[in-house]
Amino acid sequence: MTALYQYLINGRNEASISPLDRGLAYGDGVFRTLAVRYGQVDHWDRHYHKLEEDCNALGIVCPVAELLLADISRLFTRDEQAVAKIMITRGESARGYALPVLAQPMRVVVKTALPEYPAENFSKGVNLHLCRLRLAHQPSLAGIKHLNRLENVLARMEWTDATIADGLLLDQSGNVIECTMSNLFARYDRTLLTPDLSMCGVAGITRQHILELAPALGYHARIAHLSLSKLMQADEIVICNSLYGAWQVRELNNQRCAAGDLAERLRQKIQG
Amino acid sequence: MTALYQYLINGRNEASISPLDRGLAYGDGVFRTLAVRYGQVDHWDRHYHKLEEDCNALGIVCPVAELLLADISRLFTRDEQAVAKIMITRGESARGYALPVLAQPMRVVVKTALPEYPAENFSKGVNLHLCRLRLAHQPSLAGIKHLNRLENVLARMEWTDATIADGLLLDQSGNVIECTMSNLFARYDRTLLTPDLSMCGVAGITRQHILELAPALGYHARIAHLSLSKLMQADEIVICNSLYGAWQVRELNNQRCAAGDLAERLRQKIQG
Repeated sequence: MTALYQYLINGRNEASISPLDRGLAYGDGVFRTLAVRYGQVDHWDRHYHKLEEDCNALGIVCPVAELLLADISRLFTRDEQAVAKIMITRGESARGYALPVLAQPMRVVVKTALPEYPAENFSKGVNLHLCRLRLAHQPSLAGIKHLNRLENVLARMEWTDATIADGLLLDQSGNVIECTMSNLFARYDRTLLTPDLSMCGVAGITRQHILELAPALGYHARIAHLSLSKLMQADEIVICNSLYGAWQVRELNNQRCAAGDLAERLRQKIQG
Repeated sequence: MTALYQYLINGRNEASISPLDRGLAYGDGVFRTLAVRYGQVDHWDRHYHKLEEDCNALGIVCPVAELLLADISRLFTRDEQAVAKIMITRGESARGYALPVLAQPMRVVVKTALPEYPAENFSKGVNLHLCRLRLAHQPSLAGIKHLNRLENVLARMEWTDATIADGLLLDQSGNVIECTMSNLFARYDRTLLTPDLSMCGVAGITRQHILELAPALGYHARIAHLSLSKLMQADEIVICNSLYGAWQVRELNNQRCAAGDLAERLRQKIQG
């Protein structure tokens, strides 16, 4: 790989990842992807809260915030913008699924470049591929940003066209759930609907943020079951994540979507 | 961790695992667990065939058999019995789900001790816990021994009683599928049924082997949908994997199961 990156493993840059780490063996861990701008982490409190919640859901002891912030301040200088990927795994164990008696979680913080998104993703919106892969129903893991992401990998393999920004994922029942790296909102007049994630999907922090800030923009936002045909009737579709904020969906599976200024309004509010 | 192990990463013992390896980031890879006895790998052809099949299913280039066998012969001496765990990941990529243009798969071979199973697992049979976790339906991943194993981890967290050998997993529809580290056969007179794995589960090589050798033992073996109540009516239940071979199930969820000599007959034939 040619891309440059730096990292700390349990706070050390000379450390290495054990081949018996359960993150590798089983995907037994969680992660976050966050923007660090000029020494400041975007929405740190939301990220850390979700990291802790996800660790708890898997029974992993989440490292204290101070440790992670110390890692970030060592890796990121005050004159740059970059991405921090935080992975927390349950740590090393003997072979087999049984938990170690004293699990020592591993924390990895990786610094990579901020993605260079096309300017028109922000000004005009984006095109989505409709994925053939359907997300499985697993209520025990739904919502968690865990390290079992083969569904996303397989879905992302479905397109190579660089004009496609993301892929829309339905579940096995045909409900709209999310995109491979984004959550989704559909606007119907003054109502914003975002898919129910109790059976599958990742409940991102930007989705949660939008649910909370919607009233201040004059919208009523709520979680709902959403079919593909209902989605296509929306007055606007917006996708979101914590790196790009929010993008208007211009085309879904080569079908034109209604346009508006929701994504721009959300971006301003998210950043504000 | 106190357990001792040795490993080779891409054939080198001084190599390390990249924090951007997709095996860690996404569970983007496959694995095998095999017994190596006095310099010989048990059922190598079956293991390698399945490894290749699983790699192909994910679009990962499987390392040639000679490389893996060379790793094994470097790690294992001719006077010992131990376990080889082989993991093949898609390798390193930039952050994000998109595949690297030229993916260089990573291969890890880890040597660990052979598990010390209680002698009565072989002589009397084993007790199974009935897992509350239900396996999700994902036909795109079903059967593959991939690195997304959080369902197994969560299921294994359901019991700590050392007299429980494994946990029985049903799917979301209530069908019997497998155990956390084993496949399963139910005998009804001269018929052996093993659950259909087209929606979830791992299709192990010992299960395949038993399907093939059953006629020589006078059984008609086939793949079927199996409810829990139908399982409980079996004349015998046997679980299997490539480390212990086959075990009789003596108790399932504290209910006594009918006993016989199927596990012993299968073990002799598998080893023979």
